[in-house]
Amino acid sequence: MTAPLHTPALIARKRDGGQLADPEIRALIDGAVTGDVPDYQLSALLMAIVWRGLDTRELTTWTRAMIDSGERLRWDDLPGPVVDKHSTGGVGDKVSLCLAPLCAAAGLYVPMMAGRALGHTGGTLDKLETIRGFRTALEPRTFGRVLKRAGFVLAGQSARLAPADRRLYALRDATATVESIPLIASSILSKKVAEGAAALVMDVKTGSGAFLPSLDQTRALARTLIALGRSLGLPVRAVLTGMDQPLGDAIGNAVEVQEAIDVLKGGGPADLVDLTLRLGAEMLVLGGLARDLRDGTARLARARDSGEGLQRFALGVRLQGGDPRVADDPRRLPAARHARTIRAPRAGFVSRADAGLLGRAATVLGAGRARQEDRISPGAGILMRAKVGTRVAAGDPLCTVHFDDPARARAALPQIAAAFRIAARAPAPPPLVVETLGRLR
Amino acid sequence: MTAPLHTPALIARKRDGGQLADPEIRALIDGAVTGDVPDYQLSALLMAIVWRGLDTRELTTWTRAMIDSGERLRWDDLPGPVVDKHSTGGVGDKVSLCLAPLCAAAGLYVPMMAGRALGHTGGTLDKLETIRGFRTALEPRTFGRVLKRAGFVLAGQSARLAPADRRLYALRDATATVESIPLIASSILSKKVAEGAAALVMDVKTGSGAFLPSLDQTRALARTLIALGRSLGLPVRAVLTGMDQPLGDAIGNAVEVQEAIDVLKGGGPADLVDLTLRLGAEMLVLGGLARDLRDGTARLARARDSGEGLQRFALGVRLQGGDPRVADDPRRLPAARHARTIRAPRAGFVSRADAGLLGRAATVLGAGRARQEDRISPGAGILMRAKVGTRVAAGDPLCTVHFDDPARARAALPQIAAAFRIAARAPAPPPLVVETLGRLR
Repeated sequence: MTAPLHTPALIARKRDGGQLADPEIRALIDGAVTGDVPDYQLSALLMAIVWRGLDTRELTTWTRAMIDSGERLRWDDLPGPVVDKHSTGGVGDKVSLCLAPLCAAAGLYVPMMAGRALGHTGGTLDKLETIRGFRTALEPRTFGRVLKRAGFVLAGQSARLAPADRRLYALRDATATVESIPLIASSILSKKVAEGAAALVMDVKTGSGAFLPSLDQTRALARTLIALGRSLGLPVRAVLTGMDQPLGDAIGNAVEVQEAIDVLKGGGPADLVDLTLRLGAEMLVLGGLARDLRDGTARLARARDSGEGLQRFALGVRLQGGDPRVADDPRRLPAARHARTIRAPRAGFVSRADAGLLGRAATVLGAGRARQEDRISPGAGILMRAKVGTRVAAGDPLCTVHFDDPARARAALPQIAAAFRIAARAPAPPPLVVETLGRLR
Repeated sequence: MTAPLHTPALIARKRDGGQLADPEIRALIDGAVTGDVPDYQLSALLMAIVWRGLDTRELTTWTRAMIDSGERLRWDDLPGPVVDKHSTGGVGDKVSLCLAPLCAAAGLYVPMMAGRALGHTGGTLDKLETIRGFRTALEPRTFGRVLKRAGFVLAGQSARLAPADRRLYALRDATATVESIPLIASSILSKKVAEGAAALVMDVKTGSGAFLPSLDQTRALARTLIALGRSLGLPVRAVLTGMDQPLGDAIGNAVEVQEAIDVLKGGGPADLVDLTLRLGAEMLVLGGLARDLRDGTARLARARDSGEGLQRFALGVRLQGGDPRVADDPRRLPAARHARTIRAPRAGFVSRADAGLLGRAATVLGAGRARQEDRISPGAGILMRAKVGTRVAAGDPLCTVHFDDPARARAALPQIAAAFRIAARAPAPPPLVVETLGRLR
């Protein structure tokens, strides 16, 4: 008599701090896809992993099993390097929208699979869908065609890639088992390997608006991503960036698309421009198209100044069914019905504009989702008119709040006001890039 | 806008070591019964509780909510005290079968709700069902009638009592979340309070065949049971008893019923007789029918010597639909087809007869269940012919193995042989009662 796979015994072993063998991990991940391991056993296992972790060998096997659960895209026929960027999620983070077309204009191929808003952070797909006609659910063939022609593609995760991750992710969100560094790393990298990226720049956010608020945890995640990437043959460069205040000025969906377009047109807020060029330069160096970060930044600046980035953006929008005229005419994006300005209660320097609080308030306004089934208010959001370090007089605008539903605004406005602090002295400027980890070449 | 109960946030709070408020706990337990909180969220919560525990206030509320999830039996019309005994489960533990009729003969009312074999420990219901016709699933009215007339009743847990416990218990078994002291305590006491016991003697097993092998954990469980009982108004006396070797000589189902009948007839192994009288004496003192343990023991010994315990047993069996003639004629119990004797490989003293290994081997023979859906082989089991301290010559019998399926016996026999150790010198006698906790009166 040989014993069959006895799932409770495997859960118990992880619960007690033991290791799972490679065939056991593969059986669990396969069972997650086939349903042989039911949800209630998976969620207990996931909580045991949040508690006890996965060691390097377990994590590599877990991630390989997730990759092997679905298709794996290959881009051998593309004439340039395939490099992606991924962010752990922040407030006002619309970098992907301007970064991908600029990198494409500089010769990279960027096959981005993005997510939706959940919790206090926005979602690239929700932002893009404010462009009339824009489709984020693409067949693999369409995905490849857009990537080849535009040099970038911005779409939702295909159900055929890493289906085990899809199942686990939905479960983790409902069972408070998202906050595990190995599970986060495995979820991100399984998708990036499956989508066929040859290298990855990770924007790992730290601060009040980040998913992992402490710098120690952020660093631990960055190191895990780099080590796991090495085991999987995917070079990962991690850039730790500050998320104590929102990135750029716009928080929302249509307002963020507009701001990304502003960047591509040569304008936009300095922090957003700087971070876009920096992350893009890292990608160009990783892909072998730039000698160093300075060279990469210069190439991206040229793509921006020449208008080629904007053209690529419009091409990508058109290829994904969207109205490319938004690139020239911002009135083609949805706008909220009402606006209300929040003003400085006294003179001084803005010393805090808490990204976490502002992100949650934007969700209340309708810019994000408290639950997966919630609908988004495409024009709702917050436009920052002062950021940390800005000198204000009493009555000067701190931000403008855009909303459709006055009841939601009533709930959100006090939260937004509470996110700001005014101090007598100028605060130290918050760092944009805190540190970088991983080899650049 | 008020926030609805957001289960993931509650799971996250417990995961991070926080406390749940009373209304939150009640909503979770209610949701477990209605299905509003799905299995996958419950199992993640249960694993977080295995990790972080429940404090005294949380545990009391959790248990009260489980009690309130169903009916609560009342025995105000019975002319004597209602006292129950519960064991955390051991190998060869058939105490309930002889204890309940003896206590009833001495004037107590014992409304026992028992369980089935699972893992390496036996189940009182499976043992009783080897008596032809015996019904363990009783309607509440029948349960009360048998209790009133026989002075005891031995039945399965009613679906109407503590249904939340029923749902959680099934889930815990499948998700490796059984091993949590607060969850164990709450599962036991919710049922005992709901069944209407006015006091409880807990037989908390410690040793290799116990559910919690370490003495520290056993003591922690005993203390939690006593404290929780105090919060719920149920006096609990905890007797920590040794489970390094099986209790009595019989391990199985029909063989254990036979051994319990032997005890009621004035025979049976000394350890089983001693523990039965001791636990029964504790119950009589708790119920106010005996001055002290010595008085209680004397009353039970009289009930045994007079044959009144055996008569009560036969009455209870008859009232629950079983064949009462088993009390006089052991051939009316099922017997296994084959038997095989395991003999001492050399002379010496038996220094170990590992209860955990013997219990697992008995399960392999068919006496227990590896999975809930497994069927039991009613006559299968092990009869000990030497226990720790017995002096043996080479070739003397150590035990007789009874089985129906030779393939199962082939798997179990080496495990059984490995459970015994023979030493040159006589070992220290293993303690039967290790210590007692909780007030006796």
